[in-house]
Amino acid sequence: MLSEKDTICAISTAQGMGAIAVIRLSGDQSIAICERIFRPAKTGKKLAEQKANTIHFGSITDGDKDIDEVLVSIFKTPHSFTGEDIIEIACHGAPYIQQQILQLITRNGARLATAGEFTQRAFINGKMDLSQAEAVADLIASRSEAARRVALQQMRGGFSSELINLRMQLLNFISLIELELDFSEEDVEFANRNELTKLVAEIESVLKKLVNSFSLGNAIKNGIPVAIVGHTNAGKSTLLNTLLQEERAIVSDIHGTTRDVIEDTINIEGISFRFIDTAGIRATQDEIENLGIERTYAKISKATIILLMLDVNDPDNKIHDAITDVKKRMDEHQQLIVVINKTDLANEGVQERFQKSSFKELSGTDAIVPISAKQQLNIDALTAALLKTVNLSAIDNDEVIVTNVRHYEALQKSHEAIQRVVDGLQSGITGDFLAQDIREVLHFLGEITGQINTDEVLGNIFKNFCIGK
Amino acid sequence: MLSEKDTICAISTAQGMGAIAVIRLSGDQSIAICERIFRPAKTGKKLAEQKANTIHFGSITDGDKDIDEVLVSIFKTPHSFTGEDIIEIACHGAPYIQQQILQLITRNGARLATAGEFTQRAFINGKMDLSQAEAVADLIASRSEAARRVALQQMRGGFSSELINLRMQLLNFISLIELELDFSEEDVEFANRNELTKLVAEIESVLKKLVNSFSLGNAIKNGIPVAIVGHTNAGKSTLLNTLLQEERAIVSDIHGTTRDVIEDTINIEGISFRFIDTAGIRATQDEIENLGIERTYAKISKATIILLMLDVNDPDNKIHDAITDVKKRMDEHQQLIVVINKTDLANEGVQERFQKSSFKELSGTDAIVPISAKQQLNIDALTAALLKTVNLSAIDNDEVIVTNVRHYEALQKSHEAIQRVVDGLQSGITGDFLAQDIREVLHFLGEITGQINTDEVLGNIFKNFCIGK
Repeated sequence: MLSEKDTICAISTAQGMGAIAVIRLSGDQSIAICERIFRPAKTGKKLAEQKANTIHFGSITDGDKDIDEVLVSIFKTPHSFTGEDIIEIACHGAPYIQQQILQLITRNGARLATAGEFTQRAFINGKMDLSQAEAVADLIASRSEAARRVALQQMRGGFSSELINLRMQLLNFISLIELELDFSEEDVEFANRNELTKLVAEIESVLKKLVNSFSLGNAIKNGIPVAIVGHTNAGKSTLLNTLLQEERAIVSDIHGTTRDVIEDTINIEGISFRFIDTAGIRATQDEIENLGIERTYAKISKATIILLMLDVNDPDNKIHDAITDVKKRMDEHQQLIVVINKTDLANEGVQERFQKSSFKELSGTDAIVPISAKQQLNIDALTAALLKTVNLSAIDNDEVIVTNVRHYEALQKSHEAIQRVVDGLQSGITGDFLAQDIREVLHFLGEITGQINTDEVLGNIFKNFCIGK
Repeated sequence: MLSEKDTICAISTAQGMGAIAVIRLSGDQSIAICERIFRPAKTGKKLAEQKANTIHFGSITDGDKDIDEVLVSIFKTPHSFTGEDIIEIACHGAPYIQQQILQLITRNGARLATAGEFTQRAFINGKMDLSQAEAVADLIASRSEAARRVALQQMRGGFSSELINLRMQLLNFISLIELELDFSEEDVEFANRNELTKLVAEIESVLKKLVNSFSLGNAIKNGIPVAIVGHTNAGKSTLLNTLLQEERAIVSDIHGTTRDVIEDTINIEGISFRFIDTAGIRATQDEIENLGIERTYAKISKATIILLMLDVNDPDNKIHDAITDVKKRMDEHQQLIVVINKTDLANEGVQERFQKSSFKELSGTDAIVPISAKQQLNIDALTAALLKTVNLSAIDNDEVIVTNVRHYEALQKSHEAIQRVVDGLQSGITGDFLAQDIREVLHFLGEITGQINTDEVLGNIFKNFCIGK
């Protein structure tokens, strides 16, 4: 059984060879363990006597064998990330050397940290609540501007501070209501029902807003799924390359930049779009082709945006039929963008021919955009149409946005329970039923911030972290 | 044109996602640039006013937008790795965040460092000589205990301090000899020929030892090439797996350990062996098979050790013939290890049957080892035979070992020139010829330590570094 009292260690920088790597220790033995394997360049210097937040040059030694020359940073409880004493050893970046030092540390009394254990300790030691701890992992995993921004905001307290505050107020009420229950034969009312109604209404409104923010939050975190419908010769891959190039152009003026390439995920103005290729949709009797079409429908049903690619030289009736076919398969939450490609090969009058008003099949937020993927004409209009699906102003205004499925589910359950409280207050149900519903609200809200937690919940959260954080 | 005055920046930790990453700046604007993009957690704190070797918590900001929460470490000239002011920013390890911060730094006046430019500056600023700088790259690239050890020793001055000292003494003599040349009509002798002869003999002996150490140094750095000769059913892959397992067993008791897997390179007691598979050798008329055999010969010629795998159930004459065939193709510097495999399938008396004395074909350091790769019998004897080729005591005693081809070539040229000096002194050649040979020695020795260098040489050395070091 792993103990919370152990001093833990891990390589905290990315795997592989770099110029330097950082190995981290946390726990009350951190400094003592490092002292045993560190020979400072300045003879006689003792790490234990050094001030917090200072850096010291010297060698890591295994007996009389020198392993590497390093910099040792000291952080002291309680003013550290984990709230414990922390040592960071910056060594040369050879994986071999990193392993040698890590093994040496474990032989000297630390144990290897489990995934996320440093952050878990920060939570246990009250340096952050659970939703903040989860945001650390989101921040590290962020792949787009919006994802980074939302995670940083959440790590800094984001919505949890507000929830903790509302939960505290509700806690006060429930103790009063439970007091009433103790005196139930005397029919007293300690909890002011008007004030409670006001508070409950406020909580309901906050929760509703948070629950509703999740569709945006999820899109930010995981990327917005875009199903591309169109035949191979419609120019799908040319379009993806064009969009990718635009993105690369922004990045590549900085020499040495590296990009994590994920197939067909494209960042547009800080938002990730996940492009999912599909076969076309066409009425057919052919059994095998029907199978392919079924798969297309399945992909369409999971997408937020459907991008239908057609050829500018297709006759009008073919274009109308294709749009109608796709619209039949969409629900009201999905948006259709009809891309009319190859305008470079068309005669003039393209803009007039493809005005949205001429396409009665298109509804509210749908769009029709004539482009040339090959000649990169009108691509701006297409990216604007894609971005229109995202509530950018919410991000720009640093509104609280829920990105975490666990939070979303707990918020949904809190919201359902608080609605029962609202209803109960209106219909004047008895105090014991009221108390039960309020207890439920408290429970689910407490789960989000970690005020109520189980080892199982904690285990599930931190196992998804990387080791070393 | 890149200037040495620029403040440079780079991501110094390995590419990809880690818990944290470190971005490094070096140059006289490091602190000022960081000041512009850093908002300390403690309001009003100024980085410029902080002591060297201290760490500061706060946020990296781009205008009013927060990018990440970070730790900033400050190092000050001249007591830093490069000898310049250095800032290290430890941020969350998302590649996206690393890029954002790096771009922000470049927009604020630093430029991206070229490969090895931090170490190059350490050299330019006199923090280390050239051979030490090269050892930094070797240390980062080290994949085995011996490679790490030799690189660390070289980084700490290793042979360069001795060379610099000998070169200085030689420099004194040459100025005296050149003074003689100015007074050549007067036939004076300022340089004491006895002392010169003594110094030159000492230098010759040191250089010879260094030149000779290179075959070991090269083996340590690049691994010892072992050609395995034997047919598929001789159990080659079983043997490699057995050797790999032994190595893995050492590492895998530490949970979370990562290994850089390189095909068929196996570390045995800190030494890398590169196992090169070959086809068998067998007299044949078949043209295609002959081609394969030619390729086997080519591989054998490049190996230090030839490992001939035979089957314990082969008749004696077949075994003798195979050994004779291989020995014909080997030179005196190569070592043969005959592995008699599958002893688990043999009758008793295996050890007696395969005593080296019964095999007149085997010479000095050759060995014959009966094993069972499958049952892992007698593998110790095989690894001992492999390690016998390596001068382990030289490594254990921290003797100076040359691992760098550039050094080796310069040392060879120095050695040739110093031998001409030795000969010249014996035959009593005139001062001007003597001076010319000594100048050559000085030149090549100076190249190793960087006292003599050209932009081209420097460029070639540092381009092989990783960026960020």
